[in-house]
Amino acid sequence: MEPKQTTPVSQLGEFGLIEHLTKNFHHVNSSTLKGIGDDAAVLDSEGKKTVVSTDLLVEGIHFDLMYTPLKHLGYKSVVVNLSDIYAMNAQPKQITVSIAISSRFTVEALDEFYAGIELACKNYKVDLVGGDTTSSLSGLIISVTAIGLADAEDLVYRNGAKEGDLVCVTGDLGAAYLGLQILEREKRIYIEHPEVQPELENSDYLIGKQLKPEARKEVLKFFKDMNLKPTSMMDLSDGLSSDILHICKQSGVGCDLFEAQIPMSEEAYHMALKFNLDPITCALNGGEDYELLFTIQPEDETKIADEDTFCIIGIITKKENGCVLVTRSNNRHILKAQGWNHFE
Amino acid sequence: MEPKQTTPVSQLGEFGLIEHLTKNFHHVNSSTLKGIGDDAAVLDSEGKKTVVSTDLLVEGIHFDLMYTPLKHLGYKSVVVNLSDIYAMNAQPKQITVSIAISSRFTVEALDEFYAGIELACKNYKVDLVGGDTTSSLSGLIISVTAIGLADAEDLVYRNGAKEGDLVCVTGDLGAAYLGLQILEREKRIYIEHPEVQPELENSDYLIGKQLKPEARKEVLKFFKDMNLKPTSMMDLSDGLSSDILHICKQSGVGCDLFEAQIPMSEEAYHMALKFNLDPITCALNGGEDYELLFTIQPEDETKIADEDTFCIIGIITKKENGCVLVTRSNNRHILKAQGWNHFE
Repeated sequence: MEPKQTTPVSQLGEFGLIEHLTKNFHHVNSSTLKGIGDDAAVLDSEGKKTVVSTDLLVEGIHFDLMYTPLKHLGYKSVVVNLSDIYAMNAQPKQITVSIAISSRFTVEALDEFYAGIELACKNYKVDLVGGDTTSSLSGLIISVTAIGLADAEDLVYRNGAKEGDLVCVTGDLGAAYLGLQILEREKRIYIEHPEVQPELENSDYLIGKQLKPEARKEVLKFFKDMNLKPTSMMDLSDGLSSDILHICKQSGVGCDLFEAQIPMSEEAYHMALKFNLDPITCALNGGEDYELLFTIQPEDETKIADEDTFCIIGIITKKENGCVLVTRSNNRHILKAQGWNHFE
Repeated sequence: MEPKQTTPVSQLGEFGLIEHLTKNFHHVNSSTLKGIGDDAAVLDSEGKKTVVSTDLLVEGIHFDLMYTPLKHLGYKSVVVNLSDIYAMNAQPKQITVSIAISSRFTVEALDEFYAGIELACKNYKVDLVGGDTTSSLSGLIISVTAIGLADAEDLVYRNGAKEGDLVCVTGDLGAAYLGLQILEREKRIYIEHPEVQPELENSDYLIGKQLKPEARKEVLKFFKDMNLKPTSMMDLSDGLSSDILHICKQSGVGCDLFEAQIPMSEEAYHMALKFNLDPITCALNGGEDYELLFTIQPEDETKIADEDTFCIIGIITKKENGCVLVTRSNNRHILKAQGWNHFE
């Protein structure tokens, strides 16, 4: 086998590297007037409102390159930001991507990373319009900003949930967290016994949700087609428990969530048991699902009733009720934010 | 003396920290419809074009906390991004600020950093509308995105310079680089001889340009008042040599820059000699000046002639001429990009 070619980044220099990495990116949105190459990108909001979201991802904190292919990482870095734009009921149009890299990254490694970004741009029809490329003393740091557009009347905030509204989620929960548990387990085994083959069978779905999540772009089209406007919405990144608390706090309401109605895949349910974890805890606190959590007026229930994508998992109550999980055995537990906390 | 209070960041948690750090920020722009607290910020472009720029700053690469006060660092992180927006002839309106911090940073340290951001927001009338707060394994990482607005006909790109146009800069060059040399020298002395008092007299201007640069917001107002639209413009961040090459490359032209006309402060000139550096090399390649480099049509020369802020330093030529520095002794040197290259 030919040895794989490696090119040090210093061979291209900063501007050469930017040109090299971005040469395959072509704009598809009429709102992109000027992309990479000037002091700033120029966008046309086309009479709509502009929506902006940003994330900072740090190697060793948010991702582990031991089991994360760089192409997947590029894809995921974009998708998690687009998810925030969709959660406003807005259409993402542009992204900027900044990276800081240590000297261990070659041009070929960055090509992989940008191939993932390119694929995400293609799949979600967004344009890469800017960024920054610099060095770090240790590891890879990624900062993505996503910019979208929406008609003012379509925007959905976190603060619009009203008593009696139904609490809904898309897809199923806990899978990305359990995918992470599998990857972490295999990493430990590999470090201790490098000769053992990884045991990844039957976990494609869970690992896929962790390494290559998708944002719910089709749901926005469905809302539009059904003339359905959620009263509040956000994307599930920290975990259902933590995220519903944001909606309730900002809307000045409480909620009852029903354990029996919280959707989990069979794969996630069984994998939780295999890890001696409580499945519902994984669904509530796992995080990184990038599903949409939203509330609708009760009269809109029929609009989503026939769709497998959606589950009604609870009801908005008065603030005094608090935020409560109603278990299968009808016990009431106060919901706590046990999601991702970087500082503990 | 009372010991200074220190609060670990973990005591507040991620959302508590965000609330704590951003509670003093109030919006001043009508284009800011929704700031921090939802999945994304919402902006109104008010019929104008939106301009977006972003930077990633890494401790140990872009700044050294041994001699950089955190308040100055917060201020500078914002200003260098606003400088990119002004360089498009646009007005900055919003910023997002993301940080990743290691466990050595206390809430009080972050308060200092955000006090600098707050001051920059106040001085430049921009709104903080979002960001991300997370942890790092080592050091401080800062990502700032700036968003501005301009009427389409006011936007100035890098690609509009024409043969015969005059090349102009604001202020003077090389000071920030020499400020950095002083700080690096004092750091070396401190490490070797901690008992020696730092020798910083008469270097306020140079150190100020390095630690607390300002963006040239008043120049845009002047352009508007004088009905003067530059044919091309960018901000000087990498160094005059490197930056004029961008304008010439993108405009498909060459240039003659005249050494005798390149502005340096007396402080910078004498400090260069003290460091055994060629003053003109500091002005050409120093970087981080955050002055504006722009070209104007020759008939607009009278509009800037009476203003001390501006220097005409050269003339745009045919492409075949190349980019040339004409020395005081009338020798012609081809300009090379010797600015900041992170990867060498």
